[in-house]
Amino acid sequence: MRISRRGQVDPFIVMDVLRAARAAEEAGRHIIHMEIGQPATPAPAMARKALAQAMERDALGYTVALGLPALRRGIAALYARWYGIDLNPDRVIVTAGSSAAFLLSFTTLFDAGDRVGLGEPGYPSYRQILRALSLEPVGLPASDANRLQPVPADFAAVDLKGLIVASPGNPSGTMLGKPQLAALVQAAAARGISFISDEIYHGLHYGDRAVTALEVSDHVHVINSFSKYFSMTGWRIGWMVVPEDHIRTVERLAQNMFICPPHASQIAALAALECIDELEANRATYAENRRLMLEGLPSAGFHKIAPPDGAFYIYADVSDLTDDSLSFAAEILDGAGVAVTPGLDFDPHRGGRTLRFSYAGATSDIAEGIARLTAFMAGRKA
Amino acid sequence: MRISRRGQVDPFIVMDVLRAARAAEEAGRHIIHMEIGQPATPAPAMARKALAQAMERDALGYTVALGLPALRRGIAALYARWYGIDLNPDRVIVTAGSSAAFLLSFTTLFDAGDRVGLGEPGYPSYRQILRALSLEPVGLPASDANRLQPVPADFAAVDLKGLIVASPGNPSGTMLGKPQLAALVQAAAARGISFISDEIYHGLHYGDRAVTALEVSDHVHVINSFSKYFSMTGWRIGWMVVPEDHIRTVERLAQNMFICPPHASQIAALAALECIDELEANRATYAENRRLMLEGLPSAGFHKIAPPDGAFYIYADVSDLTDDSLSFAAEILDGAGVAVTPGLDFDPHRGGRTLRFSYAGATSDIAEGIARLTAFMAGRKA
Repeated sequence: MRISRRGQVDPFIVMDVLRAARAAEEAGRHIIHMEIGQPATPAPAMARKALAQAMERDALGYTVALGLPALRRGIAALYARWYGIDLNPDRVIVTAGSSAAFLLSFTTLFDAGDRVGLGEPGYPSYRQILRALSLEPVGLPASDANRLQPVPADFAAVDLKGLIVASPGNPSGTMLGKPQLAALVQAAAARGISFISDEIYHGLHYGDRAVTALEVSDHVHVINSFSKYFSMTGWRIGWMVVPEDHIRTVERLAQNMFICPPHASQIAALAALECIDELEANRATYAENRRLMLEGLPSAGFHKIAPPDGAFYIYADVSDLTDDSLSFAAEILDGAGVAVTPGLDFDPHRGGRTLRFSYAGATSDIAEGIARLTAFMAGRKA
Repeated sequence: MRISRRGQVDPFIVMDVLRAARAAEEAGRHIIHMEIGQPATPAPAMARKALAQAMERDALGYTVALGLPALRRGIAALYARWYGIDLNPDRVIVTAGSSAAFLLSFTTLFDAGDRVGLGEPGYPSYRQILRALSLEPVGLPASDANRLQPVPADFAAVDLKGLIVASPGNPSGTMLGKPQLAALVQAAAARGISFISDEIYHGLHYGDRAVTALEVSDHVHVINSFSKYFSMTGWRIGWMVVPEDHIRTVERLAQNMFICPPHASQIAALAALECIDELEANRATYAENRRLMLEGLPSAGFHKIAPPDGAFYIYADVSDLTDDSLSFAAEILDGAGVAVTPGLDFDPHRGGRTLRFSYAGATSDIAEGIARLTAFMAGRKA
């Protein structure tokens, strides 16, 4: 059987790093993981307890396609808590992670051949999901001056049907202020470009909170997840917020493409919304990890880093050290026993000169990783 | 923001029935549910216990995209147990339900505009998922003489890139014997038509077991799920089996489109594979329900039914009673307090003259439903 053209997506380069890291571990070596974008913590204790109890009393069959009404109301209430926004719960659609939300958003908004803009550097799967849906990803190189976030001028002369923006960004961790986000939303709206706001790292900020696109306009798709702040990656549970006149279309697509999000994960997510103390303790850990990284990476020799506003990544410009980040990451893994992600996954053009460091792990691992990186870089110079 | 053309999928007609049934229930009425295609039973007890234990000791983060290796091996072992087939576990890909498997299979095999054949009557979401992916569903009317399953002559003169076949079928419950299945696979292969075998109801048979397409050829996509036999609908966990030269493509698509199937559901599914006694007890319940239905429906006045080989549905030709199955289903709901599915979801052309009865519920509900249908039909004639 032939394989489709749309199936020819690029591999994740980080997977090569992961494979090499696992091989090293199987050979008995201890590796510090700074390549993985997920919390080391489990789902909150009360979330797991809620599921354990539900499993005793409920068959956990299909839910309605848009998710448990109580969970949709709970997520709407989160918008009041986090942003002071009064959000109609009908506009909240529970999804099987942000992955399913992207599939639903892209199929709701775009037809085969449509061009969709995305900032570079950015989350690599945007590009690959778009291709799998016969859409055309259009990279918009973001500048250091704009802290690696797109600005209206970046797509003023580009023919687009859609634009995806992430704040905090992955890999950069940088955030858009309300005026910057509003400028993007308005520039897109003025040209009939559908605006998709990836807000998966909201809740994880180290200064001002992130701004949601819903503070700027109701005519956007917002995508979020329980994976990061709520520490539930493997549960595959997330959500989207859509304009009222899109709800029925998304519902029909969701009924057919997914039937419903995982019921067990919905139960756990509903309880996780209330686990504020545990989740804020996680955030305090990331804040300490970030402090160690911002202090330790420059000392080790990674000087060109911008302090991230949110998420749990630091994106380093290593152009003074290499123009082959893949080989450099392999060298760091081999020499330091620290796994990091080459920038090529996030920026196919300039990512040969960048690395992403994740500080989502335990603080003791972060400290050990910095010590190893420092020793490695000292040895490399010598 | 504009809505895409591919987003214009048809609603499920059964949803109108469900809505009306819920409204009746909220008004205090007791409704027997013969419209729903899911077991009334929960996941097997040991599956739930395995998850409860895993939640205590494991963070349940992302798994690899293709699923836990132990689960892939366990599913491969199921092919030995059920069919006597020696299956390479590398070919088994764990998915977020058969829904995700269809999305992966269709994107792996087809490009925008490709035409994909499907038997009518059939599972309505095939058609809608294909449309959402900018593919063209091509209905192939199946005949009563062929027990509502397609035969090679049905697509001999039809231009197709792919063909989807389900055995046991939904809504018919009829199965293809090995020669019939082989004829379809070979006719498709001879013309370069990719063959997708939906085997989601395997394990639920009431005479001979179902034949898997893998007994006929390795060059097919097989899709299955833990939803039906394993009684895990809401867990959204299934699998696909693909040829060896498709594994890498499916892996890359899965990494980007889904990251991984729900980890908790994978843990539960692994344990469910061993819960043979509990699952066979469920099957015995369906067998008893089926016996009651095959006896009771004709007595009630639904004469034109063919005994289903598997699954938990009976598809009735009600052309002697109506040519508007939607109104008739509404009349049955109102008059008998029994929810059934109009055939239009499964066959847009002939489904006005058919109904689907599900017997997935508890035996006491099935008996009560038949009694109500009998009284209703007697009153209707009078």
